[in-house]
Amino acid sequence: MPELAPVLDHIDAQLPDALERLKALLRIESISTDPAYSEACVEAADWMVATLQDIGFEASRRDTAGHPMVVAHGGESAGDTPHLLFYGHYDVQPVDPVSLWHSPPFDPQIEPGADGGVIRGRGAADDKGQLMTFVEACRAFVAVHGALPAKLTVFLEGEEESGSPSLVPFLEQHRDELRADLALVCDTGMWDANTPAITTMLRGMVTSEVTVEGAKIDLHSGMFGGPAANPIRVLSRAVAALHDDQGRVTLPGFYDGVSELSDDMAAQWRGLDHDADAFLGGVGLSHPAGEAGYSALEQIWARPTLEINGIWGGYTGEGFKTVLPARAHAKISCRLVGDQDPERIGEALSAHFRSAMPDDCTAQVTIHRGAKATVMPVDSPLFTRARDALTDEWPNPAVYAGCGGSIPVVGHFQEVLGMDSLLAGFGLDDDAIHSPNEKYNVRCFHKGIRSWARILCSMTD
Amino acid sequence: MPELAPVLDHIDAQLPDALERLKALLRIESISTDPAYSEACVEAADWMVATLQDIGFEASRRDTAGHPMVVAHGGESAGDTPHLLFYGHYDVQPVDPVSLWHSPPFDPQIEPGADGGVIRGRGAADDKGQLMTFVEACRAFVAVHGALPAKLTVFLEGEEESGSPSLVPFLEQHRDELRADLALVCDTGMWDANTPAITTMLRGMVTSEVTVEGAKIDLHSGMFGGPAANPIRVLSRAVAALHDDQGRVTLPGFYDGVSELSDDMAAQWRGLDHDADAFLGGVGLSHPAGEAGYSALEQIWARPTLEINGIWGGYTGEGFKTVLPARAHAKISCRLVGDQDPERIGEALSAHFRSAMPDDCTAQVTIHRGAKATVMPVDSPLFTRARDALTDEWPNPAVYAGCGGSIPVVGHFQEVLGMDSLLAGFGLDDDAIHSPNEKYNVRCFHKGIRSWARILCSMTD
Repeated sequence: MPELAPVLDHIDAQLPDALERLKALLRIESISTDPAYSEACVEAADWMVATLQDIGFEASRRDTAGHPMVVAHGGESAGDTPHLLFYGHYDVQPVDPVSLWHSPPFDPQIEPGADGGVIRGRGAADDKGQLMTFVEACRAFVAVHGALPAKLTVFLEGEEESGSPSLVPFLEQHRDELRADLALVCDTGMWDANTPAITTMLRGMVTSEVTVEGAKIDLHSGMFGGPAANPIRVLSRAVAALHDDQGRVTLPGFYDGVSELSDDMAAQWRGLDHDADAFLGGVGLSHPAGEAGYSALEQIWARPTLEINGIWGGYTGEGFKTVLPARAHAKISCRLVGDQDPERIGEALSAHFRSAMPDDCTAQVTIHRGAKATVMPVDSPLFTRARDALTDEWPNPAVYAGCGGSIPVVGHFQEVLGMDSLLAGFGLDDDAIHSPNEKYNVRCFHKGIRSWARILCSMTD
Repeated sequence: MPELAPVLDHIDAQLPDALERLKALLRIESISTDPAYSEACVEAADWMVATLQDIGFEASRRDTAGHPMVVAHGGESAGDTPHLLFYGHYDVQPVDPVSLWHSPPFDPQIEPGADGGVIRGRGAADDKGQLMTFVEACRAFVAVHGALPAKLTVFLEGEEESGSPSLVPFLEQHRDELRADLALVCDTGMWDANTPAITTMLRGMVTSEVTVEGAKIDLHSGMFGGPAANPIRVLSRAVAALHDDQGRVTLPGFYDGVSELSDDMAAQWRGLDHDADAFLGGVGLSHPAGEAGYSALEQIWARPTLEINGIWGGYTGEGFKTVLPARAHAKISCRLVGDQDPERIGEALSAHFRSAMPDDCTAQVTIHRGAKATVMPVDSPLFTRARDALTDEWPNPAVYAGCGGSIPVVGHFQEVLGMDSLLAGFGLDDDAIHSPNEKYNVRCFHKGIRSWARILCSMTD
């Protein structure tokens, strides 16, 4: 095991430089879901390649039909030291509504405050700040010891925020190159600011887009209002019918494969003493609005959801236009748990909209590639070592947690490469990821780097 | 009575020039609902002033808190010849979605075809093409006889497509200047391409905007999906509840003041032999989707409606964003008939949304100024003369018709000036007003000018 203390000292000393490097990455507008930013995604990939080469990795950009992947290899196997693959993503969410940002989303700034303040900007937490905690830990090892502590592969994608269309084909084409003993993923959060977490359950997801079409042209409500079917009304009615009064999803078969929480897990989660009031209060809410009979934490970690993420149709500009639009649209996503089958749920969603159409209206439903929920094997010794390493860094012991989010790559690593993932991240609930004014605490960034140094060290003995 | 025949000959000979003048007006992007086009509205008003001065009117632009009015006076009273006020509007609807236009909306072109083809562009029919039929008739009288055939006031507004906020204050401030024996309004349609119509019933309108607010920021559906209230779901549910399964509006008191059609009127309308299949088929529909038990014509002319003209919230761009938005919005309008009270209906709409809010959501409902439905006194001799004049011009006799649209100025003329309106227009059902690819038939424009010449002549004896 390489000596840890000088690595940690080096990390502490080099924090200002590490923050400058993160700011450079955050300035690249790598929004993956909007084709207008394709060049910025390539730029971000190239930036990552250069950065990894600078540390001593053999790194290269791998172009795909979508945004490029970055693959880097470094370090040596030694004895029982596992081969580890680190995964992150250099793409970010869109920034709209941009008017709600207090500073430009791609002009990152350190805002002073307690414990070093925060770094503000799109991607500060999700996932540029998080992935750089690992890269900076590697940099410190090389600076202090002249080498990485283990055989490491770094694998970064640029389509995580847009459904990862190139991911599975890429994994399938590069099985041998990418297969490792364990994946390390830094795209999750802490339990709280002093309690690190290893996330062992992730919800899956399936997304879809619905278009309801009525007349072949937009109509004037004075001329046609009455006899003309209004796609907005039809869509609203169909959307409203997706939940019952108890907040349960009404799609037939939606809950197939959903298990009630085991008594053990329920007890462990109760032990976390989740403060639902504070959690919801932080964003201006007060009541768990999901399925009746479940706590907020259960609703997020253990229950599936169906949500409308976007809806639009007709005139949405300033002023008024008495139009009956030809079309209305919605974007819908389901978060999945247990053994729920994304494909069957997509089919049920399509059937729901098709059957909800009155005369003169048709529904076009596009179902995107889905991912099942995943559950990690927490009995592996590598998990125990990582948990102990995290406990050494932070004030409170590390916990095993669930996660309401979807990180489909974890399921793909299991399915395509037979590889489990250890999910450790340093985000906080108030990071505003996917929202205006995203930030990452400088303390999380700093101690995140130190945490990875500890985890890597713990796995080399 | 001035001699009519040379005026009609002059109109026929000058049609190419008249079309060029209309094209010049159509090039002005006078979208009144969007503040970005305010200067274009002023430009359109100035163009109208110059055009009316060119014909010999004393014309001036009258600035208001919104877009300017145009007022022009010309001609002399003689004997029993009534003083007539012509009303039109130089503003137009927005052009979105602009991608559906086959040619630029503000680059009007004559497209060849039967009977002279069509003139294509935003405002070609509504209302620039229509108002210019009257202006060109006046021009022909002056050219042939050296004078207008009666005392005429031309009154044009630039806010008809955006709720006419300045109209009533302007009428109140200029009662004496604007009061005439009868208003002539050219903003309605023909019964069919060979049958002119005088519209004697107009639906009223009340419009509103609703915003549902949940959390104070947009949320990530992975982190908050489940316990967080989703304003899109809440809005969709409240919107869906506005109609029952029979297509009736559920707001309490909505139908107060709505009378069933008299037997006489019902018989007259049946005599029109309305072809609902052709009417709906023209825009790709096949079934009257409104209240059960009413024909399509009754649904448009005699029944009130409540329609969603716009809805939006969350992520609506390309790709996907798993956001739970902080807000969702809708634009809603009601078409009114009989004695329905716009104010009470606005209150019922506000109450509906307020009572539909679950914990953690609030509804902000803005009700805009409404207008009651109006019914014209068809027993006036001026109506009979106008009907006969129209019958002389067109292949089929003129009919008295209803109209599903709202022309609030007609109600305001009655209330503020005690003045009735004679509504004669030459639009056709396929003109696509308020939609992409709006057009006006050259034949309608030509014979519309001739029709006004006949009507004006008929009223001078």
